[in-house]
Amino acid sequence: MKEERKLIWQDHLSALTAYLDEENIDLAYVADPVDIAYLTGYSSWTEERVFALLVSRTGQALLLAPAINEGEVAQTAWADRACFYQDGENPWEKAKEKMPAWPKEVWALEARAVSLGHYRAIKEVFPKANLEADISPWLAGQRMIKSPAEIEKLQAAGRQADLALALAFALLKEGQGMSESELALELDYQLKKRKVGDLSFPLIVQAGESAASVSSLPGQKGIQAGDMVIFDLGVMKDGYASDVSRTVALGEISPAKRKIYETVRLAQETAAKAAKPGMTAGELDQVARGVIEQAGYGQYFTHRLGHGIGMQVHEPVNLEPGSEQKLEAGMCFSIEPGIYLPGVGGVRIEDCGYLGEEGFHPFTKTRKDLLLL
Amino acid sequence: MKEERKLIWQDHLSALTAYLDEENIDLAYVADPVDIAYLTGYSSWTEERVFALLVSRTGQALLLAPAINEGEVAQTAWADRACFYQDGENPWEKAKEKMPAWPKEVWALEARAVSLGHYRAIKEVFPKANLEADISPWLAGQRMIKSPAEIEKLQAAGRQADLALALAFALLKEGQGMSESELALELDYQLKKRKVGDLSFPLIVQAGESAASVSSLPGQKGIQAGDMVIFDLGVMKDGYASDVSRTVALGEISPAKRKIYETVRLAQETAAKAAKPGMTAGELDQVARGVIEQAGYGQYFTHRLGHGIGMQVHEPVNLEPGSEQKLEAGMCFSIEPGIYLPGVGGVRIEDCGYLGEEGFHPFTKTRKDLLLL
Repeated sequence: MKEERKLIWQDHLSALTAYLDEENIDLAYVADPVDIAYLTGYSSWTEERVFALLVSRTGQALLLAPAINEGEVAQTAWADRACFYQDGENPWEKAKEKMPAWPKEVWALEARAVSLGHYRAIKEVFPKANLEADISPWLAGQRMIKSPAEIEKLQAAGRQADLALALAFALLKEGQGMSESELALELDYQLKKRKVGDLSFPLIVQAGESAASVSSLPGQKGIQAGDMVIFDLGVMKDGYASDVSRTVALGEISPAKRKIYETVRLAQETAAKAAKPGMTAGELDQVARGVIEQAGYGQYFTHRLGHGIGMQVHEPVNLEPGSEQKLEAGMCFSIEPGIYLPGVGGVRIEDCGYLGEEGFHPFTKTRKDLLLL
Repeated sequence: MKEERKLIWQDHLSALTAYLDEENIDLAYVADPVDIAYLTGYSSWTEERVFALLVSRTGQALLLAPAINEGEVAQTAWADRACFYQDGENPWEKAKEKMPAWPKEVWALEARAVSLGHYRAIKEVFPKANLEADISPWLAGQRMIKSPAEIEKLQAAGRQADLALALAFALLKEGQGMSESELALELDYQLKKRKVGDLSFPLIVQAGESAASVSSLPGQKGIQAGDMVIFDLGVMKDGYASDVSRTVALGEISPAKRKIYETVRLAQETAAKAAKPGMTAGELDQVARGVIEQAGYGQYFTHRLGHGIGMQVHEPVNLEPGSEQKLEAGMCFSIEPGIYLPGVGGVRIEDCGYLGEEGFHPFTKTRKDLLLL
C-alpha cells in the first residue's frame, strides 16, 4: 500500500521535472500543501510558517519545512531532501545554501498559493532570478487528469461514502423526529466510532421545505413523515476525497414530490450515460439541465451540474452552463443535478466518477430508485 | 448582543482609517478572512474566489465578495457597501467601478494574505497605483492589543472551556479503560450535543507515557489507573477562541509523577503572578522556565511558555526564550509550562488570560491542585 502511494507521487514529480525542462524553466516553487502532497506524498499545515517544495529541471527536489516538522519528515522518503529552518531564520537563505549548483535563473512560482510577502522575501534572497512564470495552471491541469492509481483511491473513498450513506439511512429510520442537526451530529459521531473515516466536508442533511434552499446549515426542526431528506456527504480515504448525495423519503410522499424525485433521477442518469471524452463541460451540464427544463423545473435547478474531485472535494473541472472546457478521459467529477421547489422540498442526486474512453464510471453505487424509509 | 458586536468592529475599522490618514496611505486592501471579520463583523471562506475589504483614508469601505455571498451579506451591516462579482468577471474591475472618487494612488496590501496571483491581477487593473506598502504588521499589532469588549468575549469563551474540562473529567472517570482516541471522540460528541460550542482546535488527550511527547495524536491504548492524563482543548464562542490545559490523575499516582505535577503547577502560578506590562515576553518565559530548571527538569520543558489568543487560538504575541517583545496591557496570551519525562509521563497546565496594568487575569478558572479521579 505504501509502495503504491510512493509510485503515485513519484510519477507526478517526474512529470513536473519533464515539464520544466521542456519549458526552459530552471526551478518550480510549489507552496499549496495539497500540491506538495501530490508531488511528495507528504504534507503539513504550518500556519504562517514557510512550507514549500523546490524542484529543478535537472531532477533535484528540496522540501523546505520548519524545524518542528523534522521528526515527521524523517519518517518519509524526504529525509535526505529536506531543508529545515528555525523560527527567526530566513527559510530561503537556508534553502539557497542547500542548492548551490542548481540551475535557478528562471523560476515558476505557484502564484495562486505563494503570498505577496513570501514573494518579496524570495526576491530579496534571489535578486537576479526571473520570477515571472507561474506553475499554478500546469499543476491544476495535471491534477485534473487522474492516473489509474489515483482512480483506485477515489474508488476506495467512494466505497466509504456508500457505507456512510447506508448508516445515514439507518439512523434516519431509527431516529424519527430527530432534527437535521441532531441527525448530522449522530451520523458524524457514528462514522468516526465505526472508523468509516473522516468527513471530507461538514455533512449536509436537509429535510422537508428547508431542502428547497441549497446548502443551508442543518436546522432544528424535527424531520417528519412525508418529508424528503437530502444527504450530501463525503469521506477522506488515503488522501483522496469522496462526495455523494442521495434523497430519501420518510414514509410515503406526495405525487408532487415523487415527480421532482423522478425528474432529478432521470437527469442524473441521462447525464451519466451521455458523458464522453470530447464533449464540453457545458454540453454535459445542458444534458441534465435539458431534462429538468423539459419537465418544467428549469428555474429550480439553481447550481452547476458538477465539479472535479480528487485530493480535494472541489477541484477543477467545473461543469457549468456555457463552459467550453473539453472533457477528457481521466477526469473525475460529480454529476449532481437538483430541483429545489419552494413550499415542496428539494431533491439532489449525485455520484462522482471518472471519465473513461467509453464513458462515466461512478465511484458510488448506492441505489437511486426512491427509497421509502 | 448584536449591538455590542457591531461596536467592536466599528472601532477597529475607525482605527484603520485613522492609521491610513496618518501614514498617507490612500487605500488598504485586506484579504485574510479573520482580519476581515475583525474589521467588519462578517467573514466568509470562499476557497479560491476573491474575498477582500478595501478601506480608504477618507473613511470609505467596500467589501468585495462573490455573488453567491449576496444573501449572507444582505443580512449584515455591509449590504450597502458590498461589491459582488460573478464567476468569470474580474473582481477588481468591478471594485474599481464602485470607487470612482476614492483616493487610490498609494495602497497598502495585506502582503501576508494576498496571493502573488491576485497581486499581479490588481496591478493590471490599477497600473498606476503604488502597491509597495504592507498593512500586515499594523493589523497584527492592532489585533495583539484587545479592547475591553474583546476581553469580555474571550472571558465568555473561557467559561465554555471550563465547562468542557468538567465534562472531560467526568467522561474520564466514567469511562475507565477507554483509549485516548475513544475519549476524544466521546468528548467531542458530548460537547456538540450539549451545545457547549465548536472546538477551536482538535482536542488533545494524552495519557501515561504517550503524554511524554508533545502534541502527538490521540492513541489507541487504554487509559489506566496510575496514569496522568493531559487535556488540552478550546471552544469558539461568538468569534473568539479559548484554550486551556489541565492534567489529572486516574487514581493514585507515583511520587515521581506528583513531583513533576507540582513543579509545573508552581511554574505556571509563579509566571501568572509575575506577568506585568513592561517586562519582555522572554523574561516571563524565563520565570516559568527557571522554576522548572531549578527542580532539575529544564530539558524536559521543550516548548515556548505561551502564545497570543483572540479570534484565533494562535496569534501574536509569542512568549519564547529570548524574545524582546514588551508585554503590554490588553495583550491576551497563554501561560502553559509543561514537563514531558520519557518513561514517566507528561504534565501541562495552561490558562489564557489578559494582561491588565496590575497583572494577569485568567479566562479559565478550573482548579489547579492535583485532581485524582
